[in-house]
Amino acid sequence: MSTEHLQAPTSDQISEPIETDILIIGAGPTGLFAVFEAGLLQLKCHLIDALPQPGGQCSELYPKKPIYDIPGFPEVLAGDLVDNLMEQIKPFQPGFTLGERADTLEELEDGKFLVTTNKGTKHIASAVAIAGGLGSFEPRKPLLENLGQFEDKGVAYIIRDPEYYRGKKVIIAGGGDSALDWTIFLADLAEELTLVHRRNEFRGALDSVEKVQQLKNEGKVKLITPAEVVALKGESHLEGVQVKKTDTDEVIDLDVEEFVPLFGLSPKLGPLADWGLEIEKNAIKVNNSLDYQTNRPGVYAIGDVNTYPGKLKLILCGFHEATLMVQSAYQRIFPDKRYVLKYTTVGGVTGFDGSKKEAPKAVVKKIE
Amino acid sequence: MSTEHLQAPTSDQISEPIETDILIIGAGPTGLFAVFEAGLLQLKCHLIDALPQPGGQCSELYPKKPIYDIPGFPEVLAGDLVDNLMEQIKPFQPGFTLGERADTLEELEDGKFLVTTNKGTKHIASAVAIAGGLGSFEPRKPLLENLGQFEDKGVAYIIRDPEYYRGKKVIIAGGGDSALDWTIFLADLAEELTLVHRRNEFRGALDSVEKVQQLKNEGKVKLITPAEVVALKGESHLEGVQVKKTDTDEVIDLDVEEFVPLFGLSPKLGPLADWGLEIEKNAIKVNNSLDYQTNRPGVYAIGDVNTYPGKLKLILCGFHEATLMVQSAYQRIFPDKRYVLKYTTVGGVTGFDGSKKEAPKAVVKKIE
Repeated sequence: MSTEHLQAPTSDQISEPIETDILIIGAGPTGLFAVFEAGLLQLKCHLIDALPQPGGQCSELYPKKPIYDIPGFPEVLAGDLVDNLMEQIKPFQPGFTLGERADTLEELEDGKFLVTTNKGTKHIASAVAIAGGLGSFEPRKPLLENLGQFEDKGVAYIIRDPEYYRGKKVIIAGGGDSALDWTIFLADLAEELTLVHRRNEFRGALDSVEKVQQLKNEGKVKLITPAEVVALKGESHLEGVQVKKTDTDEVIDLDVEEFVPLFGLSPKLGPLADWGLEIEKNAIKVNNSLDYQTNRPGVYAIGDVNTYPGKLKLILCGFHEATLMVQSAYQRIFPDKRYVLKYTTVGGVTGFDGSKKEAPKAVVKKIE
Repeated sequence: MSTEHLQAPTSDQISEPIETDILIIGAGPTGLFAVFEAGLLQLKCHLIDALPQPGGQCSELYPKKPIYDIPGFPEVLAGDLVDNLMEQIKPFQPGFTLGERADTLEELEDGKFLVTTNKGTKHIASAVAIAGGLGSFEPRKPLLENLGQFEDKGVAYIIRDPEYYRGKKVIIAGGGDSALDWTIFLADLAEELTLVHRRNEFRGALDSVEKVQQLKNEGKVKLITPAEVVALKGESHLEGVQVKKTDTDEVIDLDVEEFVPLFGLSPKLGPLADWGLEIEKNAIKVNNSLDYQTNRPGVYAIGDVNTYPGKLKLILCGFHEATLMVQSAYQRIFPDKRYVLKYTTVGGVTGFDGSKKEAPKAVVKKIE
């Protein structure tokens, strides 16, 4: 098994790793809140996420959708919830490895864990909390023969940095919110922008559809529908695509440097499935009667990625699980210290950045 | 045992009870949020609380204190959190029995529960969720011989309705936030207001202390310190008190109709302790590996009042416990129905009042 070694290295034998107390895999709401609870115990966290920004599904799939079941919020937009959590954890200065997928987990000689991403970034931590949601979001890809050849060389399935597209000839494919939103966003940046969709109808927020209609009318976006990209051309980098109109079979040659198919993301448990963890119904089994630990001591699973009797895949449950997980991680890291719960209402919050938030103190004062 | 009967009545033999699906004992944040999660499953809730308003400790003890560990709120005042929760549960029209303490729990012949308060109000429900926090808040009382004789006849330890004091001669005793705040509030209502404290120094928010100083300077509040009430006078209702200056031993006779000693509230598990529930360290033991049920089937304990391995007395944990409890109560009430979790982001929230909250729908629209 790839996660077991006869002779594991010790943590100081790993070159230039990112070191932290709790390594959190997945930067969705549950993973983010874990940083706060860890911070209250003076534990440092680092987060890895395959998406280019924190927030998980909330940021990537439905930032503008209202959520009604977060306690204390009669209504909150998913994106705002993420912003609030980022603000809440700021004092505890979490590190982030974004746009990389956690691929391997190895236990080191000294009991610490080494987690390496698909890009080779190495992380060492005393405890690992998998807050992986439904898994890492893998893009749905168009079926094109030489697609792989141009990945990161003119083909991208997620827009990581919009500025990259400034002054370039870009073609977006897709008919949903993501295709519409990025068409609107890139219309001002790209030198030329084409939107291709296999139907005439787009599915998305009314104002997005109307905005794209307006950009088309103004000549800022070229629209080809119903159509699909059928071939990619180029040498070391993408140089052009062929678009076929599916109603007339007409084939159009376009000079483009960037092709962005936005066909949605589909969650996959991915490499986690090979980490020697007990898996049930595509989720990681945990001990819910104590601390949400997996069958591997020191490795926890919290939020939508875990399962136990009565499990509900709700954000508020992830918050609770994160909080209990952190207590257990603390005991693992400091087996001899006795933790005493302090209420933030009483003790305030002291950040690693030296910041201090606390309730106004009562005065003792004579009235004369 | 008082909770067991050889021949229990059936629910229709109880005259004029309040009937509901889940009876929640304790209207703090955990109890309030349970109403929301129950509402999503179309279950109705009714809450009982010994305090005169919802919110538990948050409203009674520290409404103006910031809390920092509610997920998604970098900072929220306890009172605002309660207001938000009340707004969030509004569509599910909970009932409230306030200012009454749940005294007895009996299981009826048909498996339902009868809960009777200290004022005799009867409630019948299919499930009971004890969300009692640290217990019911019992006032600390002054040691005065005939105190009991005047309770609710001129002596009150909690101000339930400030309007009651309009135009009356009132004496408040105490030196903390509660005494200061009510002195400020009643200064405009009472005909005469006296504040007595056993020290010269008051302990509270700076602006409260300063405001009382100002009211004293303006002659709106009479201050006697260091002093204490040493005797109560009257027949069927309080007519006067004796106040003794503790520095000079001088005794002052005051004509007052209302005496409000505000010496703080001390939580007591109270009558709950005799409901046949397993108690450990002054808390109710629950099955945390499933649904937070107590040893009595159909009776749950959620929030600070319960205990289990690894328990943390945090509001966010109560939210999670409330959510899982509601699922179990649903299965108890509808053993044959299969519950399917619906996300509010997808399905919205449909209130019992006919209200509907939901995300804006996507359109399918042609761009031409």
